[in-house]
Amino acid sequence: MKKTIKINTKGNTDIINITEKVNDILNKSKIKSGIINLFVKGSTLALTTIEYEPGLIKDLKEAFEHIAPENKDYYHNLKWGDGNGFSHIRASLLRPDLTIPFENNKLLLGIWQQIVLIDFDNRPREREIIIKKIS
Amino acid sequence: MKKTIKINTKGNTDIINITEKVNDILNKSKIKSGIINLFVKGSTLALTTIEYEPGLIKDLKEAFEHIAPENKDYYHNLKWGDGNGFSHIRASLLRPDLTIPFENNKLLLGIWQQIVLIDFDNRPREREIIIKKIS
Amino acid sequence: MKKTIKINTKGNTDIINITEKVNDILNKSKIKSGIINLFVKGSTLALTTIEYEPGLIKDLKEAFEHIAPENKDYYHNLKWGDGNGFSHIRASLLRPDLTIPFENNKLLLGIWQQIVLIDFDNRPREREIIIKKIS
Repeated sequence: MKKTIKINTKGNTDIINITEKVNDILNKSKIKSGIINLFVKGSTLALTTIEYEPGLIKDLKEAFEHIAPENKDYYHNLKWGDGNGFSHIRASLLRPDLTIPFENNKLLLGIWQQIVLIDFDNRPREREIIIKKIS
Repeated sequence: MKKTIKINTKGNTDIINITEKVNDILNKSKIKSGIINLFVKGSTLALTTIEYEPGLIKDLKEAFEHIAPENKDYYHNLKWGDGNGFSHIRASLLRPDLTIPFENNKLLLGIWQQIVLIDFDNRPREREIIIKKIS
Repeated sequence: MKKTIKINTKGNTDIINITEKVNDILNKSKIKSGIINLFVKGSTLALTTIEYEPGLIKDLKEAFEHIAPENKDYYHNLKWGDGNGFSHIRASLLRPDLTIPFENNKLLLGIWQQIVLIDFDNRPREREIIIKKIS
């Protein structure tokens, strides 16, 4: 059975810590250990882990600006005019899935390792993360 | 039990939409919901999702040329002489696995989100994607 | 039930072939086929696959220096003073999870495709890889 987490984002490489929301789902789970697959629907957002502190949040935004700059001339923008070519490219490079082990109803993350959703779109969005537990 | 999808590619960062082929496997599946793990054998190709439209296909190719340029002097090329150092590096950065939830025999993708195999090698290849469904 | 692999690394984008250690776990497994999820605890290391040969190991290190240079002024370094901002950013971009199919107690990798742990931290570390088999 799938669970979903809904998140309102600000877009523009908004980096949001979703660790507690995922652990809340595991806390109530009858399946106590296994793997949990997180997947984001959409082509302008992605998932990863990071030490969630303000410095690294800024550093990661700058890294994406270096890798896929916002103001490059993207073919996508020429055709669709919505100006979010960079959002699509960043999301495809980082990717939409993340699979993490859990035991005793808790994610097996490092102490300084949090799960983040990154919304690369160029406007606020309402997002959905699909969650499947497998044992 | 594993399934495989075979694909002939052109190489040279050939970006191929495999969404329908994966949904075909799910359509015939007795397992109606769970997660599906896709994995590509080989070290010069990878998987991700993207809005599959011609502009973004060109944009993603340019992004990889920016990240790991074809004509850089790769140590791999000096030793092996096959000129595909850039292909290996791009594939390692993007990675070979993708795990996606499904329900009612259908992938839970966004409307504008397609699964793509990217063949970074510098020549046409016959490729194999391994597929495992888990419930 | 989870298994763990412990690895001592040198840090500084140390790229370590862990394929044999993972196959050792599968060799002794009662579950003969399924998927195996690898996950690294911590925010300065990550997983991928590569053809494990000395040229590509150097090429991949250079690629990460191009993507997230060591000597950039990271906000993380200003705050924490441990100088490993680049390590965090590289790890977040590459990501901590990898899920691979197996059959007959063997990973379904390509012949020239090995699993690597990359330790991006700027000092030697003792690391733990968590392994879950699912059938």
